[in-house]
Amino acid sequence: MVQRSAFLQFASSEVDADILYGSGFFAYDPFLYLEYRGRCWLVVADFECDRARAESNVDEVWPAGVLAAEDQEHRRAKQPDLTPVGWAAAMLRRLKIRRVSVPGQFPVGMVRGLEQAGFSIQVSKEPAYPRRLIKTKDEIGCITKVQRQVERAMRAAEAMLHSSRIVKNRLVLAGRTLTAEDLRRVINLTLMEKGIVAAQTVVAPGDQAVDPHNLGRGPIRPHQPVVIDIFPRSSGTHYFADMTRTVLKGRPSAALSKQYRAVLRAQKIGLSMIRPGVAVRTVHQAVAECFRRLGYETGERDGRLQGFTHSTGHGVGLEIHEPPKIGLVPSSVRFRKGMLVTVEPGLYYLGTGGVRIEDLVVVEEQGIRNLTRYPKKLTI
Amino acid sequence: MVQRSAFLQFASSEVDADILYGSGFFAYDPFLYLEYRGRCWLVVADFECDRARAESNVDEVWPAGVLAAEDQEHRRAKQPDLTPVGWAAAMLRRLKIRRVSVPGQFPVGMVRGLEQAGFSIQVSKEPAYPRRLIKTKDEIGCITKVQRQVERAMRAAEAMLHSSRIVKNRLVLAGRTLTAEDLRRVINLTLMEKGIVAAQTVVAPGDQAVDPHNLGRGPIRPHQPVVIDIFPRSSGTHYFADMTRTVLKGRPSAALSKQYRAVLRAQKIGLSMIRPGVAVRTVHQAVAECFRRLGYETGERDGRLQGFTHSTGHGVGLEIHEPPKIGLVPSSVRFRKGMLVTVEPGLYYLGTGGVRIEDLVVVEEQGIRNLTRYPKKLTI
Repeated sequence: MVQRSAFLQFASSEVDADILYGSGFFAYDPFLYLEYRGRCWLVVADFECDRARAESNVDEVWPAGVLAAEDQEHRRAKQPDLTPVGWAAAMLRRLKIRRVSVPGQFPVGMVRGLEQAGFSIQVSKEPAYPRRLIKTKDEIGCITKVQRQVERAMRAAEAMLHSSRIVKNRLVLAGRTLTAEDLRRVINLTLMEKGIVAAQTVVAPGDQAVDPHNLGRGPIRPHQPVVIDIFPRSSGTHYFADMTRTVLKGRPSAALSKQYRAVLRAQKIGLSMIRPGVAVRTVHQAVAECFRRLGYETGERDGRLQGFTHSTGHGVGLEIHEPPKIGLVPSSVRFRKGMLVTVEPGLYYLGTGGVRIEDLVVVEEQGIRNLTRYPKKLTI
Repeated sequence: MVQRSAFLQFASSEVDADILYGSGFFAYDPFLYLEYRGRCWLVVADFECDRARAESNVDEVWPAGVLAAEDQEHRRAKQPDLTPVGWAAAMLRRLKIRRVSVPGQFPVGMVRGLEQAGFSIQVSKEPAYPRRLIKTKDEIGCITKVQRQVERAMRAAEAMLHSSRIVKNRLVLAGRTLTAEDLRRVINLTLMEKGIVAAQTVVAPGDQAVDPHNLGRGPIRPHQPVVIDIFPRSSGTHYFADMTRTVLKGRPSAALSKQYRAVLRAQKIGLSMIRPGVAVRTVHQAVAECFRRLGYETGERDGRLQGFTHSTGHGVGLEIHEPPKIGLVPSSVRFRKGMLVTVEPGLYYLGTGGVRIEDLVVVEEQGIRNLTRYPKKLTI
């Protein structure tokens, strides 16, 4: 635990990775988590206390209703304050804390409420847990397990494409036209079999992939690339993984084959440059430069942003998008041993469609270790 | 759209239902959404602009990178400010807005940053969209569709229990011991087939259900109740649904049968009382009173909170837990036509185990309309 005066968080640990990382307690409803003088506390709804005691890693769990009632008595108030501000104020009063720091994502409404109740709130400019950037062996293990299932799901989707037949401008499987929805379903079901939750898997055929977060829909066409980006979360460990492949049933055009090779080459350059001490932005710049050198320009064309339109990668952990972002960030942001990032260059043009290739890697002493074990092959 | 001076939100619409409701744009990464003089704007990453224009319901979509660069030129700054504060400041400067209000859940770090940049920030104490409380016909339709799939998933789980055989203290299906994990898997897969995402389905046998949010694990025992609580979200519409049943393979003890009938009776009382104008807390109090009258006490026993330990229900919509909470809330909170809530009393005792029965209902002129079409029967 980080040593600091008093550090308070309030969030649902389903959506706030910091409070999950700090408390080890997973809950849909927001709760309070306090670190103070080397100890830590949770305040949760009364009926969640026994579960919090069993599942969290804190020193003490206080039931919010009981705490608020005791605080009411102590202050001789008319009624207990059962709002989140009331919970927090009761907790701080009981511990005789007047000054407390909170993370930047703390809700401003609660800050104002606590200030009105006489507390002094300092907003931390630092990340709550800088060590979240550096993954432990256990964390790498959790993420690798998810990545293996991502690969299994990708294989299931490829198998459907493989088994389909080209009938004019459609792919036909078991007498039905194969769609993006079919591939997404088999991917998400394959993951769910293992308790891994993919809510928004991208299966974007052809020009649909020009918007990199377009989920994709409708028939898969022969001779057309499909971007498949799978980034699910384990319902057990709550860690994410992330992988993208671009595949095609049929024969790629010469332009598409060239575009695919360019993305492969850019990814290779990115992967080869990552090691401790290297500025993150230089990797992104090298990837972008590789595309320019090969003649692939980025910018608005026909009213749509085309080319290499996103960053090169991002950290992955308890959030799908964590620091470091591998993009045009300040040059002081450097790779460090134990960071776990994606490397996912892509090129997107109306007409040829999208190509993205994404691996998940961990930064080691001498360079990267690729956690991804899946071939990169355009044609199925 | 609500008419107010300038109202700014910043969040991921995956986790913040207000920004999703306001903008109609679903995205994992946080973005800015502004309402001002009857118009609304999004600021998103450059590569998300085309998708935002196609999928959102706003008047204008601005690319964050381009906006920051223009702002840099305008201010003759050394570099563009690519932080969320920089995006927001550039947006507000371009629209010549100096004062802006934000919702209570807005991140305090951004408020401090914007204040330092010279903006005046007012924190709204009201919900961003009071009309979210009252569901439209379309919203009720979306939620009902999810509830039908929840029922299909519940049937799949019951079918497994039904097909299993009692062998001493285990249930055996296809030669294997039936577990909570097996039932959870079939439920989550049944939902995922239809693009409905259940991440944390509760299948809690026996005493495990005494913690109402305990997910449950291990073998299902004969003659022992299993609390099955399914509350998934549609990956298409992003609306939730929610249903709980308590079932048992074998023969219930007399104590358990009595406990089950008590919960049924309490639910009936709750359902019968709900209509526009009724104070929400009186329904919760009547449910609690019903249990007391029947001899079921609530409190700590053997170091564990037991009895009727949670509230009677909650609103459901773009969040799984929305207002109104049917609990000890101020008596000014009253049911209104179009509210959509769960009614889910439960009793939890070590030894007999947990019983919870939950329906999803909509408040109409004369009382409730139950959106749930699933029998309530303890023994399978």
